[in-house]
This record gives sequence, structure tokens and C-alpha cells, in this order.
Amino acid sequence: MTTPLPTGAVIGILGGGQLGRMLSVAASRLGFRTHVFEPGANPPAGHVADRVTTAPYEDEAALRAFAETVDVITYEFENIPTSALDVLEALRPIHPNREALRISQDRLTEKTFLTEQGLTVAPFADIPDAAALEAALETVGTPSILKTRRFGYDGKGQARLKAPSDAAGALEAMAGAPAVLEGFVDFSCEISVIAARGPSGEVAAFDPGQNVHRDGILRTTTVPAKVPQRLLTDAVLAAAKVLNALDYVGVLGVEFFVTPQGLIVNEIAPRVHNSGHWTQNGCAVDQFEQHIRAVAGWPLGDGKRHADVVMENLIGDDMDRLPDLAKTPDCALHLYGKADVRPGRKMGHVNRITRG
Amino acid sequence: MTTPLPTGAVIGILGGGQLGRMLSVAASRLGFRTHVFEPGANPPAGHVADRVTTAPYEDEAALRAFAETVDVITYEFENIPTSALDVLEALRPIHPNREALRISQDRLTEKTFLTEQGLTVAPFADIPDAAALEAALETVGTPSILKTRRFGYDGKGQARLKAPSDAAGALEAMAGAPAVLEGFVDFSCEISVIAARGPSGEVAAFDPGQNVHRDGILRTTTVPAKVPQRLLTDAVLAAAKVLNALDYVGVLGVEFFVTPQGLIVNEIAPRVHNSGHWTQNGCAVDQFEQHIRAVAGWPLGDGKRHADVVMENLIGDDMDRLPDLAKTPDCALHLYGKADVRPGRKMGHVNRITRG
Repeated sequence: MTTPLPTGAVIGILGGGQLGRMLSVAASRLGFRTHVFEPGANPPAGHVADRVTTAPYEDEAALRAFAETVDVITYEFENIPTSALDVLEALRPIHPNREALRISQDRLTEKTFLTEQGLTVAPFADIPDAAALEAALETVGTPSILKTRRFGYDGKGQARLKAPSDAAGALEAMAGAPAVLEGFVDFSCEISVIAARGPSGEVAAFDPGQNVHRDGILRTTTVPAKVPQRLLTDAVLAAAKVLNALDYVGVLGVEFFVTPQGLIVNEIAPRVHNSGHWTQNGCAVDQFEQHIRAVAGWPLGDGKRHADVVMENLIGDDMDRLPDLAKTPDCALHLYGKADVRPGRKMGHVNRITRG
Repeated sequence: MTTPLPTGAVIGILGGGQLGRMLSVAASRLGFRTHVFEPGANPPAGHVADRVTTAPYEDEAALRAFAETVDVITYEFENIPTSALDVLEALRPIHPNREALRISQDRLTEKTFLTEQGLTVAPFADIPDAAALEAALETVGTPSILKTRRFGYDGKGQARLKAPSDAAGALEAMAGAPAVLEGFVDFSCEISVIAARGPSGEVAAFDPGQNVHRDGILRTTTVPAKVPQRLLTDAVLAAAKVLNALDYVGVLGVEFFVTPQGLIVNEIAPRVHNSGHWTQNGCAVDQFEQHIRAVAGWPLGDGKRHADVVMENLIGDDMDRLPDLAKTPDCALHLYGKADVRPGRKMGHVNRITRG
């Protein structure tokens, strides 16, 4: 058993974006203070954090000073440089653990790991070079998607192949980065599970949400998902399998394609996840607090949903709809305090309570 | 029409306690930053504020510097020194306005104002001295309660008179402060209304909650209240009358005694109110966001309740129950991050969702 962190303890958060912001607010609800480490200036999380360190991940002294002020370290994104983790891990516990990061930082490692767990993923192939791509077009075929192994998010670092003739262009779009080719999956819809595991091994999952993406970016998540219960159960079990295999502590997001042959895992994210934002208005303990509870060694919430919710991301010009949304009944706004509206930039989200 | 404050605007909050803390979190949800002004060190609101100024209300330079960084000023408590308000008001708008503060800062002024609005209050008498108390014992009688006109809260600055022989002791307890004698009200229960008014005059109220006090401190608020609908409507109308009479902008709390003769107003509070904490888990827009919306010139939420909630304050040693509460389903914890547990000190609250 882990001793739960007491009131007043400090949670260190790597990354100062909207996820760090909402983690910080959740931590405050449990009486914790937060210290955010973020290279960029004026991070959204900084508005609601007790402390902010502005420094690059290469600044070893800043990392040490940060670690020494906190009781435990977590993160809002998976692409933290290994060298920074080495410095931090020597000083304070980091949850979720390095193994979860190692696996989710690399699409090839991740797909291999998921396959080893007995989960189904789309056909894939390692693409270190043009020859490998040519070979993979025989096995994986087209349509397919070439993705960089690392650092891709929200549709970035991806190129679609409609036919073998797209190969050269797609490879060029990778700019020399190691890549993986994924076979196209003919799915009826996408769902995701947000699940958590505590230090003593307890697991809790929120109801799976049904997701709609556009241009590679999540647009809406709806709960309950209109998917047979059998598949929703499969999804929760798959998430639990991943959590246990990784001896994981914290919240994990798992995305699935729903196909006639059952579920295919799209990807995992070792952190709170955009498709779990609905929990802020649908559950007594939301995904952000659930993550903080796990990281702090507190009992997990049971994940029970007391309201039906449609979460919609507010992206770029969607902010023009703010005056209307603010007037719409049953709508809970969650804005991120970002100064500049840019196309494709997540500016906030709205949780519409469709049944209370 | 007021122009709504844009994302990134700064809300100044006077007072850094738990109400300021939850106001700051609500402001962040709308994309605002907050600057908290608080004389005490390490204020709970500071953990989730963008900026904190630690200075006494007598520090004119600090007040000016604070005002110059914010777009609008509000407060979490009504006992702000008049001299500080004079400095601030010359620089930035303050909501709710001075008149609301003037009236609610003084029990005698408040009771006179409420009576002028046609609302019923308990029998009362101005007690500047012993002679006045002797005379008031004839009109108001006993049992009754002697209260300081100013600076009383959570049962402080009060003395009960069971019989006229208690007069001398009660007066002594006032320590020379001007007081008011209130007749005892034989009530069946207590309810309160949390209502808001925007700059354009729109009014919205949350469902009235039923309150239980012990030792002068609120223990629980339950919604829905088990009180005839007619009286709940009366309560909302009374709150609206007060809001309009004061040309009020922000959230107001009004406490009522329910008696066989109808409602008797106990007191008003020109701010978010402990008995409105249930809205955090029962409404899409809670009382804290509602207050920020009013102060920022945004449209108000409609106050609709989507869940039944029992709010329980965690006072002093109630914090020992935390391990159990953290494990109880349907319980949303809201802790204030206060370092020291002291008897009678509000350390947090828990919202139990009893029907979703």
C-alpha cells in the first residue's frame, strides 16, 4: 500500500497546456498545490497553478529545482525527452512510469506491445526507408497511412496513401523520420475508454465515449456510445489489460475502431485524454481528478456516470460561437485561456448535458 | 448593454479564502485570469490564481497597483474597509456595487432596507447602549439574540438572551460594539436562495436549498428543499426584489426562515454563498461561474439543476473522515488546501449526488 499524499502536498506537472491546466484545477479540489514545468511562455496551466517554471527540458538545473519542490511528478503529454526524465526520476517518483512512456512514444513499439497483449491492431509495418515501404505496400497495401513513429499528434506527421503511386510523396512528408505504415481500417465508428489504475492495482473505467474526428482532430465525444454493450465491455477489458501489463499508475486513454470483426485498437495515450473531457460534467470524480487521485495514492472514483454528455471541442474559429454557446442551456464551457486563436488550435470545449 | 470581457481579461478578487479560490477556478473555465488581493499569507485562492498580492487593505499603493492590473474587481466577503473601496473604485468598476456592501455590512441597515422592500424580517431593535437594550426587551422580548451590527459571521459576535436577566452578560459580549437585538423566530426549517443579476438587469436563480446549521455554522444544504413550492417561489421572488432594488451585478445569497406565517428573511450576503456550493455538481453553470459571468458582463446561466445534491461542510475534525469520503461513490470532494485543521474551521465540502 502507498501512503496517500496529504493536503498541501505538491504535484509536479510536466507540460502547461490545457490538460495540465485541468489537472491543476482537479488537484486543487483535493487540497493539493501544483508546480507546472513548461518551456513555453504564459502557459494555460500557469493561470491556475501555484507555481510555474519556465525552462526548456534541456535545463538540468531547472529540472532539479522543480523536482525538489514537488512530492510526485506527472505529465500532460507523452513526448518528454528521455534525458529530462532521467534527471527527474532520480529525485522524485514519476507516474505513469517510464515503460508507459517508452511504449506510447513510438508507434511501432506501441503496436508491437498491443499485439503482444493479444489485442488487435491494424496491419502495420516498420518503414525505416523507401525499400521497406515498397515491401510493405505488398503486405499492408493501400489505402493506408504513413505515420512518423514519434511526435505525431492531432493528425500531424501523417500522409495518406490512396495508391502505391503515392509512396514517394508520403515518404517525403516524413522528412526522413522513421515511420510506420498502417493499413486502412474500414470502421463503423470510433470509441475510446478512459481508465485508471492506482498504485495498489485497483482499476476503474469511465463509460466509453463515441468519438468523431475531422481532419485528424477530435471534434465530439458522446456518452453513452451507440455501440453494442458487448463491445463496450471488450473496450474496458482491453484498457484494463494494458494498465495491468504496464503496472500503470494514472489515467490512460485507449482509442478503438469499431468494425464488423470487433474492436481494433488505434492508439493509447498515457495521460488524461481529450475524449474524457465529458467526465467533468458527467461524473462526481472526473478524469483529471481520477488521474491526480492515482498519482497521489488516493482511492479511485468508481467512474459512475450521472449524466449523459456530448463534448464538443472548440477549435480555431469555433470561438466565434462563444456568445451563442454562453446563452445555450445545459452547456458547460471550459476555455483554455489561450491568447491567440489559430486554425486547428484547441481553444476550449463545451460539455452539453443531454440528460441529467 | 455592457461589452462582455474577452478571453484573457483579468478579474480582481478581494479576499483569498475558499470562496475566492472557487471563484478563481470558475473564472479560468471562462478563459479569464485572476489576481487575488489578500492580507494573509498563503491564501487558499492563491493556489489557483494567476497572481496574488499580499498586502493589508490599508496599503494604498498596493491597492492601486492591484487595480491597474485588472479589468474588473469583485470580492469574496463583504467586510472590506470603506477606505480601500474608495481607492479601488476610482480606478476600476467594482461589482457588486457599494450600496450592496453598505447595506449588508450593517445588520441594522440591512434589516431596515429589507423591511422597506416589503420583506418580513424578525422583530429587531437598534441597541447602541444598555438603556436601548432595556427598552428593546419590552418590545422584542426574549428569547432573542444580540448581534454586533458589523463584522459578525459563522455565529461570531452573537449572544443569546433566554431571559431579561441575560441582558448584562450579552451586552458585555458585544465588547462595546453597536448591536442589534433580534427576536427569536420559531421556524420549521431554513432555506436559502442563490440568485444572480447581470448588468442588463437579467435575473436567474438556482433552486432554493434547505440548510441545517449547528453552532451558528452551516452544516448541510439539500436540494431539492422539502418545502412547499409556493414558499420556494416566494423565496426566489424576494431575492429578485433585493437584486433589483440594489441595481445589483453578481451573485447574492438570501437566507430565510420557514415559519407557519411564511418566509422571514434572516440575512443577505452580497457574494457567492456557502449554501450555493451544491451547484458545482448540480448545474452546468455553478454559482461561482454565475458570479464571474455577471461581473464580466456575460450572459447568465439559467440556473437549471440536473442533479439532486446534498452538500456537507467539512469542518475541523471532519477532515478525519476524508479516507472514507474519498471512497464513497457519488461524492465530489472540494477541499480548500488550508494547512491547519482548527475546530470550527471550514476545511472543505463534499457534494453527494443523490439523483443524477
